[in-house]
Amino acid sequence: MPYTAPTHDQLLAINICAEIEHLAQSERFAAAEPDMVEAIVDGIGGFAAGEFAPLNRAGDLGGAKLENGIVRLPDGFAEAYEAYVAQGWNAIGSPTEYGGQGLPFTLACNVLENLGSANMAFTLLPILSVGAVDALADHGSDAQKSLYLPKLVSGEWSGTMNLTEPQAGSDVGALRSTATLIADGEHAGKYRITGQKIYITWGEHELARNIIHLVLARLPGAPEGTRGISLFVVPKYHVNADGSLGGRNDLRCVSLEHKLGINASPTCVMSYGDNGECIGELVGAENRGLAAMFTMMNSARINVGSQGVQIAERALQQAMHYAADRVQSARAGSPDRHSVAIIEHPDVRRMLLRMKSLTEAMRALLYYTAGQVDRGALGDEAAARRAEVLVPMIKAWGTDTGVEVASIGIQVHGGMGFVEETGAAQHYRDARIAPIYEGTNGIQAADLVTRKLGFEDGAVFAALMADVARDSADEPALQALANACADIGQWMRSDASLDDRLAGSVPFCTMCAVAVAGWQMLKQKRAVEAGHSPALAATKPVTARFFLDHIVTEAAGLKASATAGAGLLYELTADQLAG
Amino acid sequence: MPYTAPTHDQLLAINICAEIEHLAQSERFAAAEPDMVEAIVDGIGGFAAGEFAPLNRAGDLGGAKLENGIVRLPDGFAEAYEAYVAQGWNAIGSPTEYGGQGLPFTLACNVLENLGSANMAFTLLPILSVGAVDALADHGSDAQKSLYLPKLVSGEWSGTMNLTEPQAGSDVGALRSTATLIADGEHAGKYRITGQKIYITWGEHELARNIIHLVLARLPGAPEGTRGISLFVVPKYHVNADGSLGGRNDLRCVSLEHKLGINASPTCVMSYGDNGECIGELVGAENRGLAAMFTMMNSARINVGSQGVQIAERALQQAMHYAADRVQSARAGSPDRHSVAIIEHPDVRRMLLRMKSLTEAMRALLYYTAGQVDRGALGDEAAARRAEVLVPMIKAWGTDTGVEVASIGIQVHGGMGFVEETGAAQHYRDARIAPIYEGTNGIQAADLVTRKLGFEDGAVFAALMADVARDSADEPALQALANACADIGQWMRSDASLDDRLAGSVPFCTMCAVAVAGWQMLKQKRAVEAGHSPALAATKPVTARFFLDHIVTEAAGLKASATAGAGLLYELTADQLAG
Repeated sequence: MPYTAPTHDQLLAINICAEIEHLAQSERFAAAEPDMVEAIVDGIGGFAAGEFAPLNRAGDLGGAKLENGIVRLPDGFAEAYEAYVAQGWNAIGSPTEYGGQGLPFTLACNVLENLGSANMAFTLLPILSVGAVDALADHGSDAQKSLYLPKLVSGEWSGTMNLTEPQAGSDVGALRSTATLIADGEHAGKYRITGQKIYITWGEHELARNIIHLVLARLPGAPEGTRGISLFVVPKYHVNADGSLGGRNDLRCVSLEHKLGINASPTCVMSYGDNGECIGELVGAENRGLAAMFTMMNSARINVGSQGVQIAERALQQAMHYAADRVQSARAGSPDRHSVAIIEHPDVRRMLLRMKSLTEAMRALLYYTAGQVDRGALGDEAAARRAEVLVPMIKAWGTDTGVEVASIGIQVHGGMGFVEETGAAQHYRDARIAPIYEGTNGIQAADLVTRKLGFEDGAVFAALMADVARDSADEPALQALANACADIGQWMRSDASLDDRLAGSVPFCTMCAVAVAGWQMLKQKRAVEAGHSPALAATKPVTARFFLDHIVTEAAGLKASATAGAGLLYELTADQLAG
Repeated sequence: MPYTAPTHDQLLAINICAEIEHLAQSERFAAAEPDMVEAIVDGIGGFAAGEFAPLNRAGDLGGAKLENGIVRLPDGFAEAYEAYVAQGWNAIGSPTEYGGQGLPFTLACNVLENLGSANMAFTLLPILSVGAVDALADHGSDAQKSLYLPKLVSGEWSGTMNLTEPQAGSDVGALRSTATLIADGEHAGKYRITGQKIYITWGEHELARNIIHLVLARLPGAPEGTRGISLFVVPKYHVNADGSLGGRNDLRCVSLEHKLGINASPTCVMSYGDNGECIGELVGAENRGLAAMFTMMNSARINVGSQGVQIAERALQQAMHYAADRVQSARAGSPDRHSVAIIEHPDVRRMLLRMKSLTEAMRALLYYTAGQVDRGALGDEAAARRAEVLVPMIKAWGTDTGVEVASIGIQVHGGMGFVEETGAAQHYRDARIAPIYEGTNGIQAADLVTRKLGFEDGAVFAALMADVARDSADEPALQALANACADIGQWMRSDASLDDRLAGSVPFCTMCAVAVAGWQMLKQKRAVEAGHSPALAATKPVTARFFLDHIVTEAAGLKASATAGAGLLYELTADQLAG
């Protein structure tokens, strides 16, 4: 199935939810005027459809293979990546001083959204590189920025994040990789890195000329836990002072994981310093590595939340195509008994409209969040704080909903959906990673209720829900949901124990995400009804209505779970529970 | 991961929900006294764990392979099937006159539940055989019964159902396979069968000595649609009058589907009569084939609903084991900062308790339904009608929930859940077929709202919900849900258009299933609190409470969707919707 970029809906979300015209009024984002925005959205949509989408099935079937330490991708990946770099798509959101376009994060999001719908596994490569750019731009020395950023920004080199170790999954503080200062010789002032890292996405490949690994490790005598972790930049090939490539560094990909999905994305076990000669440079201050990782966490989590949108869009297009094409059975109650395309059957319509409504609502929430990030970058502190509150919502709800939409996509296909050749099953497999990585959705929800909810004594969260309630006076279900979220937030902060908050965190996070997404869908609906985006004049009122009447009311049903507290969870001992 | 039969919970469901002691008071089921019940539940649990479970991963990895027209299974399948037949497990619920045990369907369900948790793909083989036994027992001639049933009952031969054709999926009436009466010669009075069938589960294999295909086809001049379909028995090897095997019939497996899951189950494209020499016998009356298929549909649908329980149980055990074993991070707020097993973290507990509660509730609904089937077989017409109303609920909600539980099982594992070696991903892949086959869940919900809801002018459905409401006076959420179901049922029958009913059918079916399952969990909880099943004294009150406080309240949130009507679904034309 080909991919067609949903350009109109993307532009609507960029204009109405991210309010890019306001952003373009700033000096920094002045280039983001309407013609430029349309050119980018049109351009990346066409590029993704033409270059990345055709490789999606081959990437799933062939996958990434490790041969003698070298990761091989199926035919076409190298050429597509080269075209991506050559056309400058990697540089959209990066700083201008290192060759980037300096455009809003909102537009960088759109680049990744299109690429990811076309080929989710492949797009993890640019996602990780952009993360490395952010980390080095914020925490690297001037020398490091000059040395690494230009080629990371262009995409000639790619980047990775190395956090996880076998004994330390979500508990990053438990990692054991070490870094030792080199006192003299060629590498004096640098560090010798030793350790094994797992789940390193695109940790090894030959599409880029160099790979810049960002590695968390401990200095000798560092404090235990998260306060004793430092960040190092560890290139696959040493980089000479003039930027040219030197010899191979002492690091290697030991093996690839055999995964449920995203098979084109090599998930590497990486070994650093097998021969004691792995050289890296400290980034930022000693023992402040986790803080450095945190600065890129917001955008990384938004980009993973976006993967929910991406896979949903692709699954939706495939299901729509099949349902419009597949003729089977007459409409129930029809007198003529003529078979019709299954899109005409009520429950198939319900499934398709649900898929479409959820996908558009996720996109609305995504770009609303991205717009707040951009406002934050322009110095709007309130927007920056709001963006942080929104991050766990788009990450957790976006990725859970991506799985749901992909699963409905299979159901629309009936038996054909279970047959791999159809392609619907790949989306269901690919989608399943997104609720896990970049902080599991449980961790996202914990972040919401233990940290974000408390920003400014709860005022940041309260203001968000007050905005939703204020704008939904004529939508009682949405207003009730926003008020319920506000009330639960208040209860969590004032009366609930830490365990109670955590026990209700996941359903609460879903409720909040649906409230904000519903608000943004309502805003889109009103804009379209006022004449914005004539291409969506027919559909948006229907998808928004469906969201408000079905998804919002369902989310309201989570209230009892969000407020049930932790008592029942701990009535059994672990042994009793596990049986 | 090994499988351990949840014997206590199965016995509780059999005793409290199916009320097997009442069944054993009848002459027909007198053998089902407590010792026999325990012997069967213990015995099949041990057999499934010992013989079927160890093959589950190999079956997934190696899968069924077609080599020169012969389907090969991984090592061990043939021996395990032989042991299954030798120990008589295939015969539990079959008629005594053909070598069966004549025990209640409830116990046959338990056999399949255990086998399916151990190895879902393998267990499709006995499921299909039991279906063939039912069809022939109800519709075959005495000669056909004598010829085919003894070896189908024992399991020496297996059975298949051949409905689907490439152009006719859920629309069985569109099938085109033909059957022509043979006027004279060796096969006089039999029929020549021609056609191609798809999605034929275990359509070809060598584990049984013969395969008895039940094939739907059209006689010359038969009416169009479902009223022109006849049922034929078409053996892989001809069967001589003395029951011995003759030569090979003219039918073959053309190819196997490459599927998302259940890889050990060969899903065959079957071709009948390539050489014009495929011989079959008519079963029952001409053009009455679909009615014959319908008689086995109830039990087949219940058995597929049971697959939701099966895969949920297996996923649950795997997640519990991992969570109890995997040490990571200290409890939030804990002063000592000692890492704990992840089962101690609140959101992991929530996930595990949700999995366990859903699994037990599905099992409760399964055995309640099975008990009604058995009462119906004893002549209780009200129970027989109620069973029919329950069938779409256990099939649709059971299988949807099986997917949900398998997906949570991955989430509990974090990154390890996405790595295929762990095994959690297999459950997520295997589970996904069950909402599709044996009538998609949309078709189940349609069956509920267009046929079953109307039984006896709605009295059958109303009595069910009245029973739930009556017994839940001290559980306001459950009582409210039952009353909501009753009200919606009334609205659907009296005020809603056919499209409106179908538009709300899936959320309505979920609500109904949760109401009945909640009722049965409440019944179990009361029984355990009254001293029944001391082994469950600690856990059942907690899992039942979780279901009543979380799952029931969530289901109540579907009310708006169930009653929204079809208007919004048809505001867009198909072209507008599909974009």
